[in-house]
Amino acid sequence: MLSGGVGGARFTRGLLACLGERLPDGEGGTTAQVTVIANTGDDLWLHGVRVCPDLDTLMYTLGGAIHEGQGWGRVAETSRVSTDLAAYDVGGEWFTLGDLDLATHLARTQLLREGRTLSEVTAHLCRRWRPGVRLLPMSDQEVETHVLIEGLTGGERLLHFEEWWVRHRAALPARRFVQVGLERASAAPGVIDALLGADVVVLPPSNPVVSVGTILAVRGVRAALVATSAPVVGISPIVGGAAVRGMADQCLRAIGVETSAAAVARHYGRRGHGGVLDAWLVDAVDAGDARDLAAQGWTVEAAPTLMTDVAATARIADRALRLVGI
Amino acid sequence: MLSGGVGGARFTRGLLACLGERLPDGEGGTTAQVTVIANTGDDLWLHGVRVCPDLDTLMYTLGGAIHEGQGWGRVAETSRVSTDLAAYDVGGEWFTLGDLDLATHLARTQLLREGRTLSEVTAHLCRRWRPGVRLLPMSDQEVETHVLIEGLTGGERLLHFEEWWVRHRAALPARRFVQVGLERASAAPGVIDALLGADVVVLPPSNPVVSVGTILAVRGVRAALVATSAPVVGISPIVGGAAVRGMADQCLRAIGVETSAAAVARHYGRRGHGGVLDAWLVDAVDAGDARDLAAQGWTVEAAPTLMTDVAATARIADRALRLVGI
Repeated sequence: MLSGGVGGARFTRGLLACLGERLPDGEGGTTAQVTVIANTGDDLWLHGVRVCPDLDTLMYTLGGAIHEGQGWGRVAETSRVSTDLAAYDVGGEWFTLGDLDLATHLARTQLLREGRTLSEVTAHLCRRWRPGVRLLPMSDQEVETHVLIEGLTGGERLLHFEEWWVRHRAALPARRFVQVGLERASAAPGVIDALLGADVVVLPPSNPVVSVGTILAVRGVRAALVATSAPVVGISPIVGGAAVRGMADQCLRAIGVETSAAAVARHYGRRGHGGVLDAWLVDAVDAGDARDLAAQGWTVEAAPTLMTDVAATARIADRALRLVGI
Repeated sequence: MLSGGVGGARFTRGLLACLGERLPDGEGGTTAQVTVIANTGDDLWLHGVRVCPDLDTLMYTLGGAIHEGQGWGRVAETSRVSTDLAAYDVGGEWFTLGDLDLATHLARTQLLREGRTLSEVTAHLCRRWRPGVRLLPMSDQEVETHVLIEGLTGGERLLHFEEWWVRHRAALPARRFVQVGLERASAAPGVIDALLGADVVVLPPSNPVVSVGTILAVRGVRAALVATSAPVVGISPIVGGAAVRGMADQCLRAIGVETSAAAVARHYGRRGHGGVLDAWLVDAVDAGDARDLAAQGWTVEAAPTLMTDVAATARIADRALRLVGI
C-alpha cells in the first residue's frame, strides 16, 4: 500500500480484516504480509519536535489508540502542554499538539537527534503499537509539501502544507504544490523492494495529489510501480464528485484535475499507457464514470466504497483485490 | 548575582523584597536593577528538547509559578506526557519532565532551532514570567557539566551532571567535574558589563562548585569579578558542616575542599589575594568559622542564614549588603 493518513489508515484496517478472513493466522490476525509505505510530505518541525501526521495516524489506527471520532490523534487526548505553551507566544497554536501525541513526537525527535533514520525510528515506535503491518516512511530524507499561494500584496508565497490545510482549511487558492527537499530524497530502505516483490499493490482512497502523489514523486517509486509484476489496484477517494473526507477537491483543482472518480483514474493513468494503475474501484454512485472508463479499456468496477466500519471496509478491500484476480 | 537554581532563586526573591523596602517603586517592586547571571552548566538535551534547570527555577520562582514544596518545577504540575513517553522505551525517565515544564522546553527549543541565542530565548520566556530581574544565562554557548566517575569495570567514564545528581543522587563518587564545551564558550552579552558596572555583586548560597564555580569558569567572568569596583559579598551554602540543601558536600569532596563555611570562603578566596570575595556571611552556628576567617583578615559575619521564608531571606540579603557597606 501507498498511504496517506486517515483514509489510508482506515482502509488498511479493513484490508487486514479481509486478509484475516482469507489467510487467518489462528490468533485473530493474518499470515499475509502487508507493507504500508506512508506519505511523509506532511511532516513538519513544530516547537523543535518532528511531527509525522500520516505515520502517526497509521500507527494509532492500526495500534488501537486512534481517536475514532476525528480519525487522527490519540483517544483520551488532552492539551495541557499546548495550553500552557500558548502563553509563551511562539506561534504554532493552529496545530493541535495533544499531550499523548507529543510523547510520540518527543520519542521520535530524540531518536532522530541521536542519528537514527526515520525508518529506524518508525520501527522503534511500532514496537509499542504493533500495527500488524510493516510501516515504512516513503523516504528517510525530509520532504515537505509546501503550497504556493498568492501573497497578500501580490506575488506568491509558500506555506507548509499542514499550515495551509489545518490553519487555513485549504481556503487559500493553491496555485501549485512544491515538494521541498524532493530532489535530495530517495525511497526509504525496503520501499522499492516491497513494490517489486509484492503480490498486489493497493492505492487506498487517500488524497491522490498530496498523499499518494507525493509518494509517487519520490525517486524510483513510480518506476517501481510501472515495473512490478504485481497488479496495481486503486480505490477512488472521490465519490459523487466530491472528496469523501478532507479537501482533495482543492488539491485536484490546483493541478488542473476535475474532481471526479474518472478524472482521478486518468490522472493516475493505466499501466502500459504511461500510468500506474491496472484497475480502479469507484463508488456505486459513480457507475457512469465506471462505464466511461470501461469503454476506454479500463478494468473498473462500481460498488459501495464508504468505509463506514471495519466490516464494510473489509468488503471494499476484498472487492478491490478480486478486481485484479487476488 | 551569580546564581544556581533553588538556593539562588530563593535568595534572589529575598533580595528583591529587601530592595523593595529600601528602594520602593511604589508598585510593590523596587527601582533597584538586579541582574542575575545563571549557571547553564546543568543544561541538557532530553528527548530532543533543551532543558535549562537553573534558568527555569529562577523564572518560575521569581515569576510566582514555582512548586514551593520541592523548590523546582511548576506548581500544579502533571506528568501526562512523560508517563506516556515511558511506553516508548527511549530512556531518560530518571528526569522528571512535567507537562507545564515541557511547554517551557518546547518554546525554548523552537526559538533555539530558529537560530536565536539562549540570551534572546531567555528574554523571550521572561516576557511571560516577569521575574523582576534581568535574567542572563552565563553563556550563549552550550557548556555542560559532566562528572568523571569510576567505571564499573575499572577506568573512568563521564556522566552528565544532571544524571549523576538526579538519577544517582550524587552517590557515585565524583573524581572530577568537567565542563564540556567550556573552551569554546564566552560570557553571554551583558554578563561582563553587569559585573563591571554593578554597585555590588552577590554570590548567593548556591553550590560553590557546580553552580557558582561553573559560572566563574566561563572566560572573563572571574577576571571581571577581580576587576570590578563593586564589592563582592557571598553567603555560605554550608551551615554547620553540611549543605543546607542539595549535595554540595559530594561536590566539594571531589575538588578537595572541606565541607565547612570557612573552607568554602577560602576556596572562593579574597580579592587582592587571588580570590573573588570581599566579604562572607556565615550562619550563626558557624561563629567559630567566622572568628577564624576574621583572624586572617576577612570581612565576615555570623548571623541566621536559613531562608525559611521571604521575610527571613530579605533580612539575610540586607545583612549581606550592609556587610559591604551597601
